This record gives sequence, C-alpha cells and structure tokens, in this order.
Amino acid sequence: MKQKIIDPWGSGLLENYEKIIKDFGLEIFDAKLFQNPNRIMRRGVVFAGRDLKIISDALRHRKKYYVLSGIMPSNEKIHFGTKMVVENMKYFQEHGAQAYILVADLEAASTRGVTLEEARKRALEFHIPAYVALGLDIRKTIFYFQSENKEVMNNAYEFAKKITLSEFEAIYGNADPGKIMAAITQVADILYPQFKERMPGIIPVGIDQDPHIRLTRDVVRRVKDRKFFLPAGLYHKYTPSLDGSIKMSKSKPESCIELPEDIKSVKRKIRNALSGGRDTLEEHRKLGAAMEKDMVFELMKQHLVEDDNELNKIYHEYKSGRMTSGELKEVACQKMEEFMNNFINGIEQARKHIDRLNFVKFK
Amino acid sequence: MKQKIIDPWGSGLLENYEKIIKDFGLEIFDAKLFQNPNRIMRRGVVFAGRDLKIISDALRHRKKYYVLSGIMPSNEKIHFGTKMVVENMKYFQEHGAQAYILVADLEAASTRGVTLEEARKRALEFHIPAYVALGLDIRKTIFYFQSENKEVMNNAYEFAKKITLSEFEAIYGNADPGKIMAAITQVADILYPQFKERMPGIIPVGIDQDPHIRLTRDVVRRVKDRKFFLPAGLYHKYTPSLDGSIKMSKSKPESCIELPEDIKSVKRKIRNALSGGRDTLEEHRKLGAAMEKDMVFELMKQHLVEDDNELNKIYHEYKSGRMTSGELKEVACQKMEEFMNNFINGIEQARKHIDRLNFVKFK
Repeated sequence: MKQKIIDPWGSGLLENYEKIIKDFGLEIFDAKLFQNPNRIMRRGVVFAGRDLKIISDALRHRKKYYVLSGIMPSNEKIHFGTKMVVENMKYFQEHGAQAYILVADLEAASTRGVTLEEARKRALEFHIPAYVALGLDIRKTIFYFQSENKEVMNNAYEFAKKITLSEFEAIYGNADPGKIMAAITQVADILYPQFKERMPGIIPVGIDQDPHIRLTRDVVRRVKDRKFFLPAGLYHKYTPSLDGSIKMSKSKPESCIELPEDIKSVKRKIRNALSGGRDTLEEHRKLGAAMEKDMVFELMKQHLVEDDNELNKIYHEYKSGRMTSGELKEVACQKMEEFMNNFINGIEQARKHIDRLNFVKFK
Repeated sequence: MKQKIIDPWGSGLLENYEKIIKDFGLEIFDAKLFQNPNRIMRRGVVFAGRDLKIISDALRHRKKYYVLSGIMPSNEKIHFGTKMVVENMKYFQEHGAQAYILVADLEAASTRGVTLEEARKRALEFHIPAYVALGLDIRKTIFYFQSENKEVMNNAYEFAKKITLSEFEAIYGNADPGKIMAAITQVADILYPQFKERMPGIIPVGIDQDPHIRLTRDVVRRVKDRKFFLPAGLYHKYTPSLDGSIKMSKSKPESCIELPEDIKSVKRKIRNALSGGRDTLEEHRKLGAAMEKDMVFELMKQHLVEDDNELNKIYHEYKSGRMTSGELKEVACQKMEEFMNNFINGIEQARKHIDRLNFVKFK
C-alpha cells in the first residue's frame, strides 16, 4: 500500500483499518478530494471509499448527485456510527447532493418483531428528529418508507435474478432467504434515486455495511441496459468501545454509550474507560499519556471537540503529561454533557416540524 | 398405499402418478368428496390433493373459502395444463368459492424479459380473455397485478425470514436468489386472500407446482400468530406428449399442442400421434387397440369429450377393435376443431368485456 490512512492523532487500532482497506480493495480516503471537509473527514475517522473521484467531480462541477442512507427504526436509540453517517450526509447535502432517507420499516418489522405501524411511529417520533438534531436539513431531504415503495420491491425482484447463491455467499459469508431478501431490497434502495434520473450517488456507511455496496455494484454491472452509475461508498471507522476493543457494542453496556443516554450513566462510563494515563502521577508527568490506547481522547477526537486547534492543544497537553487522565476525562464529561443536552433539545425541537417532511407520494 | 387412483379409462402413465402420491405424501383424490364433479375430476385426471376435506366441508356447508391461481403473461399461448387449472377454478367458483387471479407480471418481467407494461397488456388482451373463454366468470373474480400489490411484497419480505436455505433446497432441489424471491412472493400470493379474512382456500395446480404449496404450508406453520388456514392443493395429471412421454412440452413442438394453435398444424400432430392401433387391420380387429399407450384417446378423455357416455362408447368401440386408430384420430381432429374454434371465438367475445374486471384497488 503506497498511501497511508491520514490520522494525525491516530489510535492504536489503525492497523486493523489498513488491513480492511487491503482486504476489501478500498481506496484510502483523501480529504483533499473534498472542499471544506468535515471533522471526521479531516481526522481520518472517514478512512476509505469507493469511486470517490466521481463524487468529488460532481461536487466541484456542481453536477447532480445524491447521498443516501437508511433508518432502521427498531428502538429509540442510535449509536455513534449513525451519528457519523448523518454528519457525512449533512456534509454532502450542504455541498450540492440531493439527500434521500429511506425508513427500513420492512427490515425492522421482519427482524426486530415490531409492527410496520410501530416502526413508522418510531421513525417519525425519534429517528428523523434525531437526524435533524445532528444537522440534516429535512426540508431538502426526500424520505420514503420501504413498505410503501413498490418500485423498490419490483426492482428488487428483478435484481434477485442477476446474482447467484455463491456470489451472495462470497460477499456475505453465508446466505438464507431472509438475508437475501433484505440485501436485495437494500440494493434497490441504494439505486432508487437513479430509477428516474441517471446520476452518481454516495452511500456513507460504517465499514461493516460494505457488503451491501459491493452487492449493489455487482448488480449494476449485470443490468447494463439500466445505465446506473456504480454507487460510491464512504467508510468511517467504528467508535471504539470504552474498554479498547475496535467497536462499541451494546453487548458490553458499560463500554457503550447510546444516543441519547442518561448523562450520569455516560459520565460513569467515561470515568471508567480505558485510559492512556500512567500508573502514578510521577510516571505520567515524566512519560506523558499513552495516546494510542486512550479511548477517551479517541471519543473526543471523533465526536466531542469540533475545533482542530482545541483538539491539538488537548492532545499535546495530555501527551506531554501536563494534563492527567482524570483531567482529560472531566473535560470529556463536560463536552459530552453539552452534546447530549443539545442532542435531546434538538430532537424535541425537530419533532415540532415533522409535518414538513418530504415523503415520496406513491400512487 | 391402500387406495388407488380412480381412472376407469387409465393410461399407461398411471404408475408414475402412484409414485408421485407416495413420494410427496399426497391424498388420493376422491371425487365423492365433491358434488357434481367436473370432467377431469370424474376421470381421475385430477388425481391427488392436500387437505381436501376442509374444502369439501366448506363447499357442503356453504362456508366462505377461496380458489386462487396465477397468470404468467409471458407469451400469448396457454397449454392444456392451464386449461385444467381454469376448469377447476370454474368448478369451485360455481360451488361457492371466491375466485382470485393474480397476474404474475413481476415473474414474467424478471424471467422472460418482457416489461411490466407488456406483461400487463398480454394479460388483459389474451390471458384473462382466454380464462373467460374456458369458463371463468370474470364478474365474480378478483384480479390483481403482483407489481401493484404492496401487501404481497411486504408479507413476502416477512415470510422470507421464516425459512432456511436448507429447507428451501429440500423443497426445490436447489436455490438461487431469483428463485427464492419468486417462490416467497408466490407464498404471499397464495395467502393473500387470508390477509384480511380468515378462510380456507384451494389452489388447483399441475403436480410440478406442488413445491410452492409445500413451502406455503411450511410458512403457515411458522407464523402461527397470523392464524392462516393451511392452503389445500388440488393436483391434475399432465396432458401427455403426443409421442407418449408424460408431459407435453414445447421442447418437442411436433408432440405439443398450444392454445390457440392453427388447426391444420394441430390435426397434423394428432394424425402423427402415438396410437394404440395395431400394425395391421386384421390384428387390430382381433386384439383391439392397446389403450394404455394411445395418446389420442387420452387427449379426448382429458379435453375433447365432455359426455361420459360418449367417451365410454368410443372407448369400447376402439378397445374392441371395431374402431380403427385412423377413425379415432379423425373423431379427435373434428372435436379439436370445434374446441379450438370455440376457444378463439370465446377469447374475441371476452375481450369486449375486459372493462368489467374487478381489479383490486391499491392505495
């Protein structure tokens, strides 16, 4: 690999991502491709992509393109990964993209045992307001429910004939009818904006969602007469678990922060997080913090400190040992409290304007 | 097997069907279950079923039930198998069933390369009029297009989660994403009349379509909370190929009659068909016809002679050697010409009333 992931404040998990790039055949993300990159683009949290040049060109030359993501309205929480997806959507929406959000109510109903009605209610009362709280402009976003979009299902039916079971297994590791149905529907969702108008599109996702993008690209190559653009992919790293493993997960609740979550519980988790602080104060002052294993600094870098100069200052104070791990955690707690309050208030505000949504009208 | 298939004028292919009944775990069809059985029920052409008692009870006690079939509008021909399906639909429609016909435009578009619009046009201009010509009462039949029926697709999505790949492979022999999508959609089609109202239903099919019924029954057992009735199946034999093999097939065009087909070509095929006539007239008069291998008599029994007494007379004349194979074929040609003319005229007449169709209105 010639190029390296650019991460001036890199964590110890970097090598995992270098391997992913190589294994999946991704492009390393280059923030220079995009004007005024956002926080996670500037900091190497967005670390890879597929076909980014075509999106960069559309952006520079003010051509039509789209950015698309889905809401899975299973419960009334999101995680930091979703936050990053929304931040990237916001970025492209502010740089000329038509934003599309589909509500995966069919997926929620079939895998999470909620009814379509419950799924719809959760999307309208929580998920969409949460996206707005994170910066999405709902007036400029096109929404639809999977269960209402016949075109998506009819195209999914057609696309299913274009792939074999062994291709599916090669991409997903295994296959069963439910997974096949869900994946093929996602392929049709990803291409939906192109059904009526040929234009490139970018799908910002966590790296674990790349199989859907690969499957979609395979289908596009098989239906040449449809003249679809291959969808571009934009991949962000996981927000690491507070105990130092690569991904926060609800299976380890004490190392996982949900959005929203009671701030007292969040602060307790931050204070117990894996830190780069040394065993004694004396040692810490002498050696400075072991930055590569500090999960609180990583959380601040990914989510809590917007300003690069401020982050840089914290980084050097902490790395030099002038700032202790306890002090760093208190700064993080304070920033988190601010963020969580803004997020919760933002959701409440957004709920008032939910009638302004642009839902696709289906016949 | 205690019971035998009742076929007073049985063909040599009977043992194939005895084996199918055993292998698939079917019930032998008993015409006594149904009042005034139709021609193919009386003659053992309808030879097997699943859960027929529940339909027989509904019929006798005038309870609500449905009969359902699909139209695959790929080209503007049907075959004798479709004719039998329609005749059985007509029977149940006349005996209290609500008839449903779905137009499998998605299936036609994805497997036969026609557009949805072409598929719709063919269904309206040929297939539905052909069904009317064969006796279906369109004023009492509910129609829908797969591509318009969100409820079917949304339920298909849910049902997909209920079966495993190995179950699918056990039923169909193999699996690929396209086949899975099509089969799961058919499951939802078969259950569609029960989405709003719980009632038993019967699906008349050729025996090669039993996998769809088995899959549907498996799904019904998995979604107990939906309280569906297990769909009943009614199976007819194939119309044999004119060369004596078990099923007419377009792959052997000289042994296959399509509906409609130019009558000259049909007569040529009948005259060349495998016959039970002996090598010489003397031998024929002495031994009589070898009924078990006579494909023309089988065709008359299945499709061309409505009256049992008339058929019986022909049977005994021919079996005794008083009627020659050439004479039998001329009777068949004449009956076929009558049928084909009526069929073609019936289609033309029905086209005039196609605006009376009861299509399901979807929001």
